[in-house]
Amino acid sequence: MSDGAPNRATLHARVLADELAKAGVSRVCVAPGSRSTPLTVAFDAREDVTVYSHLDERAAAFFALGAAKRSNDPVALVCTSGTAAANFHPAVVEADQSRVPLVVLTADRPPELRDSGANQTIDQQKLYGDAVRLYADLPEPAVEDRRLRSVRVRADRAVTAATGVPPGPVHLNVPFAKPLEPTEVPADSTHGVPDDWERDHELAASGREGAFVTTTPGRMALPDDALNALVDSLADADRGLLVAGPTDRDLTALAALADSTGFPVLADPLSGLRYGAHVADVPVYGGYDGYLDPAVTADWPDPDVVLRFGASPTSKPLRKYLARTDARQVVVDPAGEWREAEFAASDLVTADPDVLARALADRVDADGGWPADTFARAERVHDETVADTADFFEGAIARRLVADAPDPATVFVSNSMPVRDVDRFGAPRSADLTVLGNRGASGIDGVTSSALGAGRAVEDPLVLLTGDLAYYHDANGLLALSRCGVDATIVLVNNDGGGIFHMLPIEDFDPPFEGQFKTPHGLDFEPTADLYGFEYARVRDADAFADAYRESLDSDGTQVVEIVSDADASHRVREALRERVVDRLA
Amino acid sequence: MSDGAPNRATLHARVLADELAKAGVSRVCVAPGSRSTPLTVAFDAREDVTVYSHLDERAAAFFALGAAKRSNDPVALVCTSGTAAANFHPAVVEADQSRVPLVVLTADRPPELRDSGANQTIDQQKLYGDAVRLYADLPEPAVEDRRLRSVRVRADRAVTAATGVPPGPVHLNVPFAKPLEPTEVPADSTHGVPDDWERDHELAASGREGAFVTTTPGRMALPDDALNALVDSLADADRGLLVAGPTDRDLTALAALADSTGFPVLADPLSGLRYGAHVADVPVYGGYDGYLDPAVTADWPDPDVVLRFGASPTSKPLRKYLARTDARQVVVDPAGEWREAEFAASDLVTADPDVLARALADRVDADGGWPADTFARAERVHDETVADTADFFEGAIARRLVADAPDPATVFVSNSMPVRDVDRFGAPRSADLTVLGNRGASGIDGVTSSALGAGRAVEDPLVLLTGDLAYYHDANGLLALSRCGVDATIVLVNNDGGGIFHMLPIEDFDPPFEGQFKTPHGLDFEPTADLYGFEYARVRDADAFADAYRESLDSDGTQVVEIVSDADASHRVREALRERVVDRLA
Repeated sequence: MSDGAPNRATLHARVLADELAKAGVSRVCVAPGSRSTPLTVAFDAREDVTVYSHLDERAAAFFALGAAKRSNDPVALVCTSGTAAANFHPAVVEADQSRVPLVVLTADRPPELRDSGANQTIDQQKLYGDAVRLYADLPEPAVEDRRLRSVRVRADRAVTAATGVPPGPVHLNVPFAKPLEPTEVPADSTHGVPDDWERDHELAASGREGAFVTTTPGRMALPDDALNALVDSLADADRGLLVAGPTDRDLTALAALADSTGFPVLADPLSGLRYGAHVADVPVYGGYDGYLDPAVTADWPDPDVVLRFGASPTSKPLRKYLARTDARQVVVDPAGEWREAEFAASDLVTADPDVLARALADRVDADGGWPADTFARAERVHDETVADTADFFEGAIARRLVADAPDPATVFVSNSMPVRDVDRFGAPRSADLTVLGNRGASGIDGVTSSALGAGRAVEDPLVLLTGDLAYYHDANGLLALSRCGVDATIVLVNNDGGGIFHMLPIEDFDPPFEGQFKTPHGLDFEPTADLYGFEYARVRDADAFADAYRESLDSDGTQVVEIVSDADASHRVREALRERVVDRLA
Repeated sequence: MSDGAPNRATLHARVLADELAKAGVSRVCVAPGSRSTPLTVAFDAREDVTVYSHLDERAAAFFALGAAKRSNDPVALVCTSGTAAANFHPAVVEADQSRVPLVVLTADRPPELRDSGANQTIDQQKLYGDAVRLYADLPEPAVEDRRLRSVRVRADRAVTAATGVPPGPVHLNVPFAKPLEPTEVPADSTHGVPDDWERDHELAASGREGAFVTTTPGRMALPDDALNALVDSLADADRGLLVAGPTDRDLTALAALADSTGFPVLADPLSGLRYGAHVADVPVYGGYDGYLDPAVTADWPDPDVVLRFGASPTSKPLRKYLARTDARQVVVDPAGEWREAEFAASDLVTADPDVLARALADRVDADGGWPADTFARAERVHDETVADTADFFEGAIARRLVADAPDPATVFVSNSMPVRDVDRFGAPRSADLTVLGNRGASGIDGVTSSALGAGRAVEDPLVLLTGDLAYYHDANGLLALSRCGVDATIVLVNNDGGGIFHMLPIEDFDPPFEGQFKTPHGLDFEPTADLYGFEYARVRDADAFADAYRESLDSDGTQVVEIVSDADASHRVREALRERVVDRLA
């Protein structure tokens, strides 16, 4: 900020970028464009900000999402005016629903050109509707002390909103008039900056050493009487359960709570609780998707208290099991949002889950109360049955992928079948695996980009488990491998079309099943390796997969390991396994 | 509609699809998904509707846009709930701004699952904001006479709005509960259809032979006094001009108006007026982007009346020329929208351009009044100068592409440099070329899909002129070649990055020019031919291009002809040509 700005757009963008960086934005994904030039130049000039350049705004936004999800830091996005901004929309929706801090900066024409027929000018006002935590149309660049201070405060507020409770996307629409480049214009002209203006307005122009305004966020904690009531109900419980759904939060305090209550923990793969050192010490269960069948649980005693953290679990058998019980079900959410679509819960507690779990763990001392071995036996039977199957199926890939993942690793999992397979077959491990997925809106768009963004955010090795539709959908995202410097092991389960539809009744109606649902594409993905520069291996059985997977984990660079799979056959194996488990347990 | 519907979702979707088809929707682009099953099944069962299956909703939407743009018929889009719908957003914005009739059908969860934490459930209410002409949240399926008649009326209203003045996208959000498949359920159950219900409610269930409600749209025409005043001002004009910008309308009546007024026609390549049989008879000019320089026009007499049709012209020199004149400028728009961002126009006439041009042509008889040969000479000098240049540059490709395009042909042109090059170098031809581009929001997203949709809508050969960024951005769209049965000649000008930025002052600031603006990607696109199954040729000079282009036009199937180009060198040639033309004319 020491050089005098050559024009107002440059000054304005410098101030905005400076303040965002000071507020905690250290990564920016930029899609090239003209109108956004002042912002791109401003971020590019900063040493405290890493700029990732993307050519497809949709992929850029999902990359930012993944980076923010993995790092828990706000990540900024920059695009030019026009449909570029609309391409961010899918990731903004996902960020809203999976609570990921994104700061979306859309450059815009100056106000007089809106709704005027000017080129590449669309209505960007509130483009993302209610999906953002904060929207602001920034004022036009001007050399005015209050205006630049307002930009700093707005930037800080935007980051605060993006990282608040719950975290999520924010949108700043930023108008710029020409010159957009750092072109020197006369100090006294319309877009000029008077000499010494910045020196004379140092606070506005250069800000403070840290953020201009600092927000100290509180954490929601229950008042003593409410906490004591909850403590009593847990202590008095005959049989309690802890359920950890997909979350953006650190739920490891649930391990302490499980320890003090003796309650089993049913941990979604996206809860952050299924994998980790605590798995050696407390009963964390992950196979419930395979055994929580009505025929099995009919003989079990009901839980009487269920504490639910995070979003609704991935597992439908778990959700249905919880809907069948008469238990008092307490949903804990830091934002007080209702995230339980069976409407079986009776209580909502608005509290920080970490604060609450610690407080409860300190105050409760119980022994769970379940007949010895209820969950442990079911889990064991499920595990043995799966291990015993000689059939090659997609679930075996998910199982192996999790079991053999390096420690530590970031494991990103696509929606549709991969997350369901990891949920059912990716057994708990005492290893530092960060398993992530886009489970907010559960789309298959942007999976590759999200994974690469997550991989780029940390040093851990990155493993992606994806399917052919998701791989195709976000093929553009593969450009980030070279362009943003990411290495990955990409496990691609290719069953040539929508394997998930075999799980649905539409399978029995053909046509239109084959043509409109399974929709085989017949794509041979190997050319993507030439296009984007990585190694490619294609395997057809479990041993070959295990070898190729291990080899990739031991190698530098990126490898795609494609498993040629039959969705129908895999579906039959999953069904048969479920039947066998249920038969043995019921 | 003869079989009794097995459940309410099936009945409801059948009625909606039936009515949309009767209202004129004969093409539907479907992205596979579960929640949208009733709609997919309903459309797939109809013989009067062609269903195109796409795996990427963004590409699906642009394909629909292209098909609707080329055919002028409304095209429907179907997707499941969740981010799929957000992927439509870029094309919806483009459809809004370039006035293309799209009927977007987003399946949704039933109301009780919204904002409940249910999977793949997002807020789809008014997802596209003000970009749509009509939004409606359809009622839930029910066996109720009034409700089904309301669905028919709503469907007809939606198509009327989409094809109205101006045409554009509409959005129907359609909630469905399970069963989504055509599964038989007991007639008296929640989702059942009573026996004989459809026979007893034939009008609601089966509709009428044609549309349920028919809208007869009027066309905006000036009242006599206003028309006469305009006639007088044209008849009295010393020098008039007709300017035809990009449009969704048939502007060929301007040829008759040019004939009766003697006014030169400056025809944008996207106006539908630069190419056609009329070019042999009336003075249509297309090279103005190359000669309307202040140094040239300073010696010209000013026009005193300018009639402007369509959107703001692609050519910046033309827009600036018009902004320099003192002429009375009349913008004619059927929707009465202001589309003139220099704010140089003085009059807006809300009238159908075809009706108005015919009425004026019948009533005016004048001789234009320009000094002999003003535009014709400039055009000739521009043309000769371009023809004389021995330098290989991107403009020569555009020139050749238009000159050698088959008659008839659909020529789709990407934004950024291709449309500018066609504008300046694609000389008028007396041939039936339909030149199209996404000039509403001028994005480079979705260009390939739009082109293929346009190509699929008619029998004409399809030529696409695109650049490497657009080709990369919408590579997924290439799947439609095989999946939707399109053949194309794709001319890919590859200058490895954002060539347009060489036109902008940011070129002088490096860094960040190379890294954040030109952003070379180094991609070798030849593997896309293996991925999507077409032929690929790479050329490096004009003669090789001419040969490969001709060969592709003579072949079946799809060929990509890649021209390896140097953006910087091409930019210098364009600049040098402009200087030479200006020197010769000034």
